[in-house]
Amino acid sequence: MIESANFQRLIKSLPGITKEEESVILESFNVRQLEPKEYFCREGEICKQLGYVDKGCLSYFQVLADGRKSIIHFAFEDWWTGDLESFLTREPGHYNWQAIEPVELICISRSKFDILRNEYTAFNGLFYRKTQTAYIKAMAKAAKDKSETAEEKYLRMLEEQPQIIQRVPHYDVAAYLGIAPESLSRIRNKLSKEK
Amino acid sequence: MIESANFQRLIKSLPGITKEEESVILESFNVRQLEPKEYFCREGEICKQLGYVDKGCLSYFQVLADGRKSIIHFAFEDWWTGDLESFLTREPGHYNWQAIEPVELICISRSKFDILRNEYTAFNGLFYRKTQTAYIKAMAKAAKDKSETAEEKYLRMLEEQPQIIQRVPHYDVAAYLGIAPESLSRIRNKLSKEK
Repeated sequence: MIESANFQRLIKSLPGITKEEESVILESFNVRQLEPKEYFCREGEICKQLGYVDKGCLSYFQVLADGRKSIIHFAFEDWWTGDLESFLTREPGHYNWQAIEPVELICISRSKFDILRNEYTAFNGLFYRKTQTAYIKAMAKAAKDKSETAEEKYLRMLEEQPQIIQRVPHYDVAAYLGIAPESLSRIRNKLSKEK
Repeated sequence: MIESANFQRLIKSLPGITKEEESVILESFNVRQLEPKEYFCREGEICKQLGYVDKGCLSYFQVLADGRKSIIHFAFEDWWTGDLESFLTREPGHYNWQAIEPVELICISRSKFDILRNEYTAFNGLFYRKTQTAYIKAMAKAAKDKSETAEEKYLRMLEEQPQIIQRVPHYDVAAYLGIAPESLSRIRNKLSKEK
């Protein structure tokens, strides 16, 4: 039984959930700890679990042909992680999820996930709403990413996700903004002089 | 009753659907025609319908602070259109959907959509799978968009979505690639010389 207060609150808040369903759902998950730099899933391997971030943060990235990392986003507390495509298709994935800090994930395997989705409407609804919200956010982000300069992206990141700058190493922030670490240093210096 | 062969095939193929459900679903939609340049939904207005593209193509875009268009993607036959966030929240949206060619959409209103989703598992499953697939594609696209040069983006577009270059005006292709129309001309000239 998962003891995380945040996760328990999430499950108890599901519309129409009964006490019995709550217990089954909480018993279907298991806790997994990751050290910094440890992978939750890796490109070329099948992603066998989805995980709720109870503590810590991870990066979600691809390695480009030239060896550079392209970070798609970071996951902090209360985010879900895992390579959804690989998890659902049971085919090797194209993405990596790696811990930046010590991480505590609340994980579910594919077989338990299928049982919950097929037999527990409340859980199915949760998963569905999360995917829908993630899609809407991804569209909004795509529209902005396409049109902004690196400096504008940096300023938006500071405003929308200040945790990134507080918790993520400089070179990972650069890989997220799609620029070289030196370019990120220049932007930070310029902005600190303008203050 | 919707007569489009493509749309009928889509509905009839839903797992576990009955004849009665098929009829109710096909009767819940209505056909809407758009002239080129006509809007299906507009920034600042509530998006009241979702639409399946039976014929034609549309662009999905935001207008930036400096007046430029940022095109997020194009929808061709068998895509779904509409501002999902605005449609679901009933709040004014942030995006535009505009016809590029004469368009025939198969549309559903929010009230009928709610009835189908709540009472028809097959339809709920369709909508859910579409959102999931769209999310997975959006993530893959975000990873690539972040790391590619304009020329690499152009070449990927030719490979993955050759219809864009065949059906979309030059300045809209540029707005999709996030570059000026002159830069797109330079890329096209360079590549045609290299052939």
